[in-house]
Amino acid sequence: MTTIREGDLVLLRFNGRREYVVKVVRGRRFETDRGYIELDSLIGLTYGTTIRTNLGYKVLVLKPLPSDLIGFFERRTQIIYPKDLAFIVYLSGVSSGSIVVEAGTGSGVLTATLAYYVKPDGKVYTYEVRREFLEIARRNILRAKLADYVVFKNKDVGEGIDERNVDAVFFDLPNPWNYINIAYEALKPSAPLIIFLPTVSQVEKTLTAIYEHKGYTEPKVYEILLREYKSTPGELRPETWMIGHTGYIVFTRKIIK
Amino acid sequence: MTTIREGDLVLLRFNGRREYVVKVVRGRRFETDRGYIELDSLIGLTYGTTIRTNLGYKVLVLKPLPSDLIGFFERRTQIIYPKDLAFIVYLSGVSSGSIVVEAGTGSGVLTATLAYYVKPDGKVYTYEVRREFLEIARRNILRAKLADYVVFKNKDVGEGIDERNVDAVFFDLPNPWNYINIAYEALKPSAPLIIFLPTVSQVEKTLTAIYEHKGYTEPKVYEILLREYKSTPGELRPETWMIGHTGYIVFTRKIIK
Amino acid sequence: MTTIREGDLVLLRFNGRREYVVKVVRGRRFETDRGYIELDSLIGLTYGTTIRTNLGYKVLVLKPLPSDLIGFFERRTQIIYPKDLAFIVYLSGVSSGSIVVEAGTGSGVLTATLAYYVKPDGKVYTYEVRREFLEIARRNILRAKLADYVVFKNKDVGEGIDERNVDAVFFDLPNPWNYINIAYEALKPSAPLIIFLPTVSQVEKTLTAIYEHKGYTEPKVYEILLREYKSTPGELRPETWMIGHTGYIVFTRKIIK
Amino acid sequence: MTTIREGDLVLLRFNGRREYVVKVVRGRRFETDRGYIELDSLIGLTYGTTIRTNLGYKVLVLKPLPSDLIGFFERRTQIIYPKDLAFIVYLSGVSSGSIVVEAGTGSGVLTATLAYYVKPDGKVYTYEVRREFLEIARRNILRAKLADYVVFKNKDVGEGIDERNVDAVFFDLPNPWNYINIAYEALKPSAPLIIFLPTVSQVEKTLTAIYEHKGYTEPKVYEILLREYKSTPGELRPETWMIGHTGYIVFTRKIIK
Repeated sequence: MTTIREGDLVLLRFNGRREYVVKVVRGRRFETDRGYIELDSLIGLTYGTTIRTNLGYKVLVLKPLPSDLIGFFERRTQIIYPKDLAFIVYLSGVSSGSIVVEAGTGSGVLTATLAYYVKPDGKVYTYEVRREFLEIARRNILRAKLADYVVFKNKDVGEGIDERNVDAVFFDLPNPWNYINIAYEALKPSAPLIIFLPTVSQVEKTLTAIYEHKGYTEPKVYEILLREYKSTPGELRPETWMIGHTGYIVFTRKIIK
Repeated sequence: MTTIREGDLVLLRFNGRREYVVKVVRGRRFETDRGYIELDSLIGLTYGTTIRTNLGYKVLVLKPLPSDLIGFFERRTQIIYPKDLAFIVYLSGVSSGSIVVEAGTGSGVLTATLAYYVKPDGKVYTYEVRREFLEIARRNILRAKLADYVVFKNKDVGEGIDERNVDAVFFDLPNPWNYINIAYEALKPSAPLIIFLPTVSQVEKTLTAIYEHKGYTEPKVYEILLREYKSTPGELRPETWMIGHTGYIVFTRKIIK
Repeated sequence: MTTIREGDLVLLRFNGRREYVVKVVRGRRFETDRGYIELDSLIGLTYGTTIRTNLGYKVLVLKPLPSDLIGFFERRTQIIYPKDLAFIVYLSGVSSGSIVVEAGTGSGVLTATLAYYVKPDGKVYTYEVRREFLEIARRNILRAKLADYVVFKNKDVGEGIDERNVDAVFFDLPNPWNYINIAYEALKPSAPLIIFLPTVSQVEKTLTAIYEHKGYTEPKVYEILLREYKSTPGELRPETWMIGHTGYIVFTRKIIK
Repeated sequence: MTTIREGDLVLLRFNGRREYVVKVVRGRRFETDRGYIELDSLIGLTYGTTIRTNLGYKVLVLKPLPSDLIGFFERRTQIIYPKDLAFIVYLSGVSSGSIVVEAGTGSGVLTATLAYYVKPDGKVYTYEVRREFLEIARRNILRAKLADYVVFKNKDVGEGIDERNVDAVFFDLPNPWNYINIAYEALKPSAPLIIFLPTVSQVEKTLTAIYEHKGYTEPKVYEILLREYKSTPGELRPETWMIGHTGYIVFTRKIIK
């Protein structure tokens, strides 16, 4: 686990914050504008080692963490950010062995994160009506080596969720208020439904639908803000720019009507 | 999993946001100022059911999520809050099978959260020099049924970490800048060290120690803010009061010097 | 101006953050649970002096700033906080000589703040339909010695604003979307209309009314968050609790249709 | 006041948020990439009118508010932002007739804001050691028609403040901890000293100097965050990006030692 092997994903970090996630393939060369690295030369090295490109630039080789992996996902949609992924997963209680449903898949960032936590025995069923996004998500998740824990469904969640008694349902959709009962039918009693929404009027409509359904606990609405700091000692201060908004997180739980 | 069994922990939620985590013990009665519940009567019920106390008050019976469990931990120390637990765990990449070290244990809130994610094959080694806190944490974690994944050590982390090649180290200590090298010796190369700190001068000292050690990546400093919203449709607005500060999260990774 | 005179308002600050705004009246005694102060004894002292009560407790005597004064306003309504007052006044461009209209008066906190900035030649016309609030506001503003700059009107703003060509209009009302045209008739061309609102659905309705009226610039919506820090050197950190929400500020300007 | 006259400053706002502050000079033409405007043609128009360039583009003509004016200041230094200007001015109690001291002048943004509030009888004494910045600030303030209320001093504030008994002192300097006693000598008893600082270590040093001086009240430390919202009805949500940090505001008041 501490030695780089063929087929591993590695994080190559240059100075100046440039970094790449690369698969170690024998006989292949990774090219950058600061020179190239023969990927064969990485095999057998210890993670955390600093190497040099053929032009002499230093490159730190790290083992990618989940947040590194999703940073390199191909994306065509707005993705969910780490600050929100972290809180959504925590709230849901999803862990090793959980069986969960997600719609829509989008670029697969939440899918991959859930897959990472349900492994090795759980499963993520993910619904996406747009075939081209599902294919992007599938490639991303294959590359992240998480495909064993994901079932991809090219299906409109409005036509129903096939699974029953699932441990959590996640919606990242423009109109989740239409699918509150579909989530209800899929969820195990007491299990959470978590919905991610960018605008306040979407939140209002979703809350109304949850209250009217009567099969859920009083919903909670959360927003997570992340401040990053400039970390130079003696110059500690928040970064000048920050992400001011991504979306609201609505959380509720199925109850017996 | 959807039916309440003897020995289960259940979350009993009264109207008005009062709630309790209770272990279902045969022949025992749970008393509140709104009447009592015979715990026998819960056995065989489906989670998500609403029952009544002998005085007729409604009580919703839910299966506790991790965030519910830690809400009922006995605590003598300042605890880490869900917004920070979620981000710390996410950043660390800890998941099923991880082997991790934590110091100090405190009331065991981070310990329990890490245990929840490393199960069933991982392990959390937790160091606490104050015996009375270790005992509180042990009771909390036993009650949360996570004790199988935790090794408690009544030891000053300054005397060294016994484990080697661990997947992550977590410090929630007043003076972590003294233990930067101790973490280094325990960590697997490329693995993260995550430190939680309330004040800016602690952050400055920690950053200085990390830079001087030279065995770590450029540290990152994060702060998480959580806004909760009043969720009544038509009255959506952030809550009037919020937690303004808990602590700063310092993140770095071991590299080969 | 640096010597306390009869009739002055003074801020009496005890240790432990207790403080009072008191009018210096000859022959009167100010009583607290830490003893009393003969107000005669203050006359002729320099502001910034520390005195003692008859029981020996130290009391710092300061000249009240506007933020001190409104802290001692009698209030029956939710008030606007300093963080919002400051930004509202700044955005409005109100300064010495401005003629402005406000509705509703509430406890008079925004009224007093506007009066403070328009003095000595400007005027604040304030509308309040509830007579009892208007009387409270009048007493507060008299006590703050700002009554010369305020005209109180016990009138529903929905019946029209009497003034024309005013430099700014301020609404702190539950349903301002009904009064967008009334503000238009009162405002000088190019002058700002500023509206303070607690909930997002009020903001949505107000924005809709402004866009539909067509006599205003594209509205802006702002929210101000204030973090207070614990100021002990070596322990610098944000306060644990903060005000998470007061209201949204909507800003627009009259244009010629 | 509602009709545009020769010599007025006007705000010309094109669609798409482009805008300019321009002085109405007879016989001059204002050129943009969307065509030109003959400035003569503005004279006699009512503010708030929409005109067209020679190429037919619509331009709204507004009377600049203080926040518009400083947006067009020439700047060579980091400036103080409206959210901070507003709170600093409010805290200080500065209003018509106040006599205040500021160091350093920088680009003159705080200078202009203070001048706007002390007019017509107050005065701002501003110290700047770097002659080139003082000249920029002087040009900015002349253009904003606020020069009558400002005295510019090309002097290091470390050599002393010439004024005595002033109503407030403002420091926007890299090392204000060296000038705490200089402020003390200039301030009227009970009057505020307000300091703006980007980093936490500057705040710590400043707090230490204030406590050690013993001539000031317990300092307060504030930080202001501004969230701007996308104001389209039905799509209300905070803007994706926000200013995450500008600086900390330290507030204290002179007391008699």
